[in-house]
Amino acid sequence: MSGRDDLDPPRSAVVAAVSLALAEDVLPMGDLTAMLIGADVVGVAYLRSRQAGVLAGTACAAEVCHQVDPELALDFECRDGADVAPGQTIATVTGPFRSLLTAERSLLNFCSHLSGIATLTRRYVDAARAVHPGIRVLDTRKTTPGLRALEKAAVRAGGGTNHRGNLSEGVLVKDNHLGHLSIEAAVDLAATRWPGRMIEVECDRLDQVERAAASGAGMILCDNMSPALVADAVAVARRVAGQRCLVEVSGEVSLETVASYAAAKPDFISVGALTHSAPILNLGLDLGIEG
Amino acid sequence: MSGRDDLDPPRSAVVAAVSLALAEDVLPMGDLTAMLIGADVVGVAYLRSRQAGVLAGTACAAEVCHQVDPELALDFECRDGADVAPGQTIATVTGPFRSLLTAERSLLNFCSHLSGIATLTRRYVDAARAVHPGIRVLDTRKTTPGLRALEKAAVRAGGGTNHRGNLSEGVLVKDNHLGHLSIEAAVDLAATRWPGRMIEVECDRLDQVERAAASGAGMILCDNMSPALVADAVAVARRVAGQRCLVEVSGEVSLETVASYAAAKPDFISVGALTHSAPILNLGLDLGIEG
Amino acid sequence: MSGRDDLDPPRSAVVAAVSLALAEDVLPMGDLTAMLIGADVVGVAYLRSRQAGVLAGTACAAEVCHQVDPELALDFECRDGADVAPGQTIATVTGPFRSLLTAERSLLNFCSHLSGIATLTRRYVDAARAVHPGIRVLDTRKTTPGLRALEKAAVRAGGGTNHRGNLSEGVLVKDNHLGHLSIEAAVDLAATRWPGRMIEVECDRLDQVERAAASGAGMILCDNMSPALVADAVAVARRVAGQRCLVEVSGEVSLETVASYAAAKPDFISVGALTHSAPILNLGLDLGIEG
Amino acid sequence: MSGRDDLDPPRSAVVAAVSLALAEDVLPMGDLTAMLIGADVVGVAYLRSRQAGVLAGTACAAEVCHQVDPELALDFECRDGADVAPGQTIATVTGPFRSLLTAERSLLNFCSHLSGIATLTRRYVDAARAVHPGIRVLDTRKTTPGLRALEKAAVRAGGGTNHRGNLSEGVLVKDNHLGHLSIEAAVDLAATRWPGRMIEVECDRLDQVERAAASGAGMILCDNMSPALVADAVAVARRVAGQRCLVEVSGEVSLETVASYAAAKPDFISVGALTHSAPILNLGLDLGIEG
Amino acid sequence: MSGRDDLDPPRSAVVAAVSLALAEDVLPMGDLTAMLIGADVVGVAYLRSRQAGVLAGTACAAEVCHQVDPELALDFECRDGADVAPGQTIATVTGPFRSLLTAERSLLNFCSHLSGIATLTRRYVDAARAVHPGIRVLDTRKTTPGLRALEKAAVRAGGGTNHRGNLSEGVLVKDNHLGHLSIEAAVDLAATRWPGRMIEVECDRLDQVERAAASGAGMILCDNMSPALVADAVAVARRVAGQRCLVEVSGEVSLETVASYAAAKPDFISVGALTHSAPILNLGLDLGIEG
Amino acid sequence: MSGRDDLDPPRSAVVAAVSLALAEDVLPMGDLTAMLIGADVVGVAYLRSRQAGVLAGTACAAEVCHQVDPELALDFECRDGADVAPGQTIATVTGPFRSLLTAERSLLNFCSHLSGIATLTRRYVDAARAVHPGIRVLDTRKTTPGLRALEKAAVRAGGGTNHRGNLSEGVLVKDNHLGHLSIEAAVDLAATRWPGRMIEVECDRLDQVERAAASGAGMILCDNMSPALVADAVAVARRVAGQRCLVEVSGEVSLETVASYAAAKPDFISVGALTHSAPILNLGLDLGIEG
Repeated sequence: MSGRDDLDPPRSAVVAAVSLALAEDVLPMGDLTAMLIGADVVGVAYLRSRQAGVLAGTACAAEVCHQVDPELALDFECRDGADVAPGQTIATVTGPFRSLLTAERSLLNFCSHLSGIATLTRRYVDAARAVHPGIRVLDTRKTTPGLRALEKAAVRAGGGTNHRGNLSEGVLVKDNHLGHLSIEAAVDLAATRWPGRMIEVECDRLDQVERAAASGAGMILCDNMSPALVADAVAVARRVAGQRCLVEVSGEVSLETVASYAAAKPDFISVGALTHSAPILNLGLDLGIEG
Repeated sequence: MSGRDDLDPPRSAVVAAVSLALAEDVLPMGDLTAMLIGADVVGVAYLRSRQAGVLAGTACAAEVCHQVDPELALDFECRDGADVAPGQTIATVTGPFRSLLTAERSLLNFCSHLSGIATLTRRYVDAARAVHPGIRVLDTRKTTPGLRALEKAAVRAGGGTNHRGNLSEGVLVKDNHLGHLSIEAAVDLAATRWPGRMIEVECDRLDQVERAAASGAGMILCDNMSPALVADAVAVARRVAGQRCLVEVSGEVSLETVASYAAAKPDFISVGALTHSAPILNLGLDLGIEG
Repeated sequence: MSGRDDLDPPRSAVVAAVSLALAEDVLPMGDLTAMLIGADVVGVAYLRSRQAGVLAGTACAAEVCHQVDPELALDFECRDGADVAPGQTIATVTGPFRSLLTAERSLLNFCSHLSGIATLTRRYVDAARAVHPGIRVLDTRKTTPGLRALEKAAVRAGGGTNHRGNLSEGVLVKDNHLGHLSIEAAVDLAATRWPGRMIEVECDRLDQVERAAASGAGMILCDNMSPALVADAVAVARRVAGQRCLVEVSGEVSLETVASYAAAKPDFISVGALTHSAPILNLGLDLGIEG
Repeated sequence: MSGRDDLDPPRSAVVAAVSLALAEDVLPMGDLTAMLIGADVVGVAYLRSRQAGVLAGTACAAEVCHQVDPELALDFECRDGADVAPGQTIATVTGPFRSLLTAERSLLNFCSHLSGIATLTRRYVDAARAVHPGIRVLDTRKTTPGLRALEKAAVRAGGGTNHRGNLSEGVLVKDNHLGHLSIEAAVDLAATRWPGRMIEVECDRLDQVERAAASGAGMILCDNMSPALVADAVAVARRVAGQRCLVEVSGEVSLETVASYAAAKPDFISVGALTHSAPILNLGLDLGIEG
Repeated sequence: MSGRDDLDPPRSAVVAAVSLALAEDVLPMGDLTAMLIGADVVGVAYLRSRQAGVLAGTACAAEVCHQVDPELALDFECRDGADVAPGQTIATVTGPFRSLLTAERSLLNFCSHLSGIATLTRRYVDAARAVHPGIRVLDTRKTTPGLRALEKAAVRAGGGTNHRGNLSEGVLVKDNHLGHLSIEAAVDLAATRWPGRMIEVECDRLDQVERAAASGAGMILCDNMSPALVADAVAVARRVAGQRCLVEVSGEVSLETVASYAAAKPDFISVGALTHSAPILNLGLDLGIEG
Repeated sequence: MSGRDDLDPPRSAVVAAVSLALAEDVLPMGDLTAMLIGADVVGVAYLRSRQAGVLAGTACAAEVCHQVDPELALDFECRDGADVAPGQTIATVTGPFRSLLTAERSLLNFCSHLSGIATLTRRYVDAARAVHPGIRVLDTRKTTPGLRALEKAAVRAGGGTNHRGNLSEGVLVKDNHLGHLSIEAAVDLAATRWPGRMIEVECDRLDQVERAAASGAGMILCDNMSPALVADAVAVARRVAGQRCLVEVSGEVSLETVASYAAAKPDFISVGALTHSAPILNLGLDLGIEG
């Protein structure tokens, strides 16, 4: 994974999120406890993992240090997407000891949250690919409010693939829309208005899959189907549209069931839990005094 | 729980978080799929729970509707802190159908994330109080960057209690600080500089507990102690300082171990997982057309 | 055009842009000249067109009035996408006369700029469709900094079609990228990493068109080709990939040359000038006193 | 022109506008296409003009590079206000190739838009001064929402002169105000309340010009008058008030008519088109690989 | 004073300042103490003055109430610029009692700070006009960072007059500039580049006054002169330039000395203390329960 | 004082406040007067005090220089909390002369306002400690809107002590709350909900003091009592609660009366005037030319 080059979040997302996080942690008086220590003490700290997992959030960690105190120097020994082992040193921070203390929690909040997403993504990817090596695991729009760009990058770091970034990027016709216009009308209208975008249709039944594939949709979302029904849906989609129409599975997919869905050989399995329910990766900052 | 009056997050935190969340979900072109439906269709939607849990995030839901389209009307049937049962209708939204569709995911992202925190909090509270009815469960600063105010309110909705809001609100002397000044010096300096604030000392051993209690600290953090050692620490703190020095347990506390820690009768158990690792509460928005 | 339902810009883009515009026009002392008039004078104003054109920016106009003074009432007689004739009344504003004066220029700046884009778009659309009725005119990322969402909506109001919203929404492989990886490698890598997105390849020569179409690109950008070469490119693309690969023309297209390019029957012609060089539509606000 | 020292826009306007522009171009996933290329490729790019014109926007270009990637180095060979020839190299950018690609469009959007304004301004200045060397060309408040500070600086780069910056900076009494108070009352009240500010009165007729000049207005706006009538207005103003009252012409002024108005020898001609209808100056970024 | 119509600050300044003030007073947990009281208690509060003074800040007070809780209703009995007597009721607020408590301090901070400025301004105005009825008292750029628009409006409410709003609005040539170019060169260059703006020259000696008046400056700043020297300066300026060049006195002016300076009959006295050293006007909010 | 290590305001507060201050001083055209001087002139300036006082705001001064022009170099000779004498040089700034001029007023506005607060704080501290050496002087929430973090740091620089940072940090039960619940109920509820926070009760009478001390409040606010009554209140509080309950005096305390209150030996005297009515410390920037 660590050979990929698409793992970094946009800098503007990093700068903005870190600025908000620090404001909520230090205003108005600053770090009362750190200020008990003399301003001239210099320290060193080692970011270490307490668990095995996949690293993400390094750009945020660097920005936290920079915004807390430009004199903090942060050197990473591995990058987003790297496997980390329990006890492994991930990075070294040196600088004013008080600034280290002030930066600690915000730095860890970003890295452990985002690494938690990367780690859970990796588990889904591994479980699915054990059965169907070509399958890809997608994230969703079920991200934490305000952190979408960072969480989408963490999914990539875990080997996952990003579904549409937001409502403006692609068309996903769901049952709620289909009460108002037919599959064919929706796909046709979307293709006319929004050329080049993902046009996906959510299907509950095989006849819908057939119609969606025939209408020119580029992707079909098999929602809440059984693995057996998914296998049928894949067959229908391939028969009607070949590789022109990809098949995504969603709903009721857990680490326990992901292999059985992967066995049905869809192109994608999307998992909201990657971003809405990932526990953190337990990281810690071991502080010391520069000798 | 629902009789408490301290559950609402500050309005300014709600307005700001919702504004960010909507910007990241609709820019630059808006909701491509919703725009396939005519602008004059009016709809109704029911916010329903798919699981048993504790509700939180209602103020964010209302603000999402307001910011997406002031013509959306949202009526809640229960408030933050309420128990919700699977299938229970929590709220009704009516208004332009397209706006309903556009609001759906952001509304659900806030409510399911925050209700997930409230629900997990309730589970810890219930497990701990079954053994020691007076105990309180505290949150930590391990919150999701940018959402601290909202997550702290969700902890209250779940029956939990808020630890210090940030680094500026209270003093928590940890081992990292104690390398630079003694327990007594730290407590004394903090009490002089920051009168009235929480002054808490992290302790790993009983001799530290004794010194912290004697020094006038208002709270002792027993970090990574066994339940038996916690019981001893509580006894030491009570002997030295009576009710003047409260005892908090943290580290290695899970839903499996929380009862054994509660049995040691500390005043508080703090659980970072409440905010950093709570899975969402599964909520859904069932959309229809106004008849 | 006015029957389309996808013309509105996202509300969050409107609110933010209007807030910036008003801040730069009234700080720090407010409207010195308007304050010469008594605060209790009530007025009425008519937004009228001085030219024939296509209307856009109505949501911004409404927001300007709201932010200047919630007591201003604005009623539009036509909506974005409507044809307006010289002298036609587009909207009526009533309320405190001073507030009318303060709102005037910002309201006109938004409406005339965005209507200018809609009007120029319409001219390109009409010129191209006179020759090839099915063709669509695309915008580009050459938008005015800070106004992309509003300008993209104005292009839709003029009957145009939006190309990708930004660098994050779709893949467009240009010659600069092709120095580093082959067409086939780029398309393949993009399709793997970014499923469902637009994958487009810029081509200067027919052999590139052939390779891009064969590689699975969904769109080909014929850049700076002659109309005759475009016709050849369309033929190659159709032969290799049928309707699966759409053809876009860009570069050197003006109102004078657009018909000759349209005659080559590409699917799209993209025109940066729609957003970077459209003159305003001349609108005015005729103020009066309520009688 | 390039010897002038008042061409730079305020840094705070530059930083804010660039931050908005980048956010709208890269969120949430970043530059999908640039990420297809390895992160360690280093490149060089040359900003070149495709047309003759006047350069503006260099501070924005530098800030775009800095915000996209602090490792990008940008060296300009000429500054705002310089004449550029077709093919001329304006600046060289070196650094990570992916960052160059990501910065390209935003950098060009700023420079080509602002240079377009500078270039059109220069054309009006040259046309007017060919007839009346002392005349100055003014901009207006008809600027693009959110970009006023940058566009006003671009007008200066083109040899133009800035009219009032906003409603708070000077008094401009128009016909709408004159329905409520006389010229004399308006000028008197304004001079009392807002000492030292520009006080200008819009006039349609010579009797108004006479009254405005007599009342102490510092500037008269001859709106929509014929060149002959402007000449009369200048004569009246000079007779009544000498050089104490300057004369500005506005309305119906185009590149075709500007000379005839200049021949009437007013002090100023103001042209809204400088900022509301300037086509871009065609600039390009030629990318390479550092070898 | 209360008959003037130029007292309101721009709405965008009010909204932004109130938003910042509330964020710093309630995040992250809200008003801990107010939440001890039931959410359904309704209250009423009376804003009363504890001192004689001049009212300002009413728009901020209204916005505080609106942003804390839209259900708060605020009715003012007098407006900015009104004289208030000790004990006088200025406004009534009704609504949720907890919201009243939360709004109280922010509302008072705005009103008492801004009324303090208005009150001190009035004292200077009265002292100066007792001696020279036509004189006007100016503020300066010595405002509290972030509050310039609001403080300038408060100065107007107190009967004062606003000097230039910022560095961009007018030209003020000080001794620091005069080390680099002569008075004549500075005035000439400024008049050419920035037509219609205030051009003022700071003078320490009579020969400078003479040169400045002769050069065409519209205003002369007599800095740190004695009253006698000011009288001479006024005479010089009048002799050279009549009413075309106004005279401002600044430096070393206090409530004790202002009359002696006014007796020298300059046009203006500017007083930095109006905004940088005004004590608050003591206002209070008397809370009750709606009966 | 200058040996204390808790004087710095949080960096995020400094950056945000300076950004707002510069925007309001230079937009849209920049510093018209500074631009009259050539861009290549280099200067030096000395920040000097015109009065004796206590320095504060150095972090803001540095940030002003950085944001105006990164080429400005600022070296302080003393830090926040230092005594400064009339004429003493506090700092030296070197760099582009125009940038020095542009930065001057904003730099002085921050430093003189914040040093004014530090200086007044020192006067109260000295007056109170002359009588009762152990007493501490507290600030209040009566801060200037938007500047709380900076003003609280200035109070510390003056030797003062910060009361609660905002409504969310501590509980202060006032008479308004006591109409709804008893002292005992309020303290008990607050202690349960908000463990570790300051819980303070405002008292007007000795029986309230007795009840508050007995109820477990950590602090008593003697509001508007006479010094004699305060002495009684201190005695009551000590008798009931020993050092567990500290006593604060507020209301009607001035530099004239502070000693008589200090003689009553309360733990704290809080003074709203520190932040709401402190006159500035008169500082100046003496500019020169490097050479």
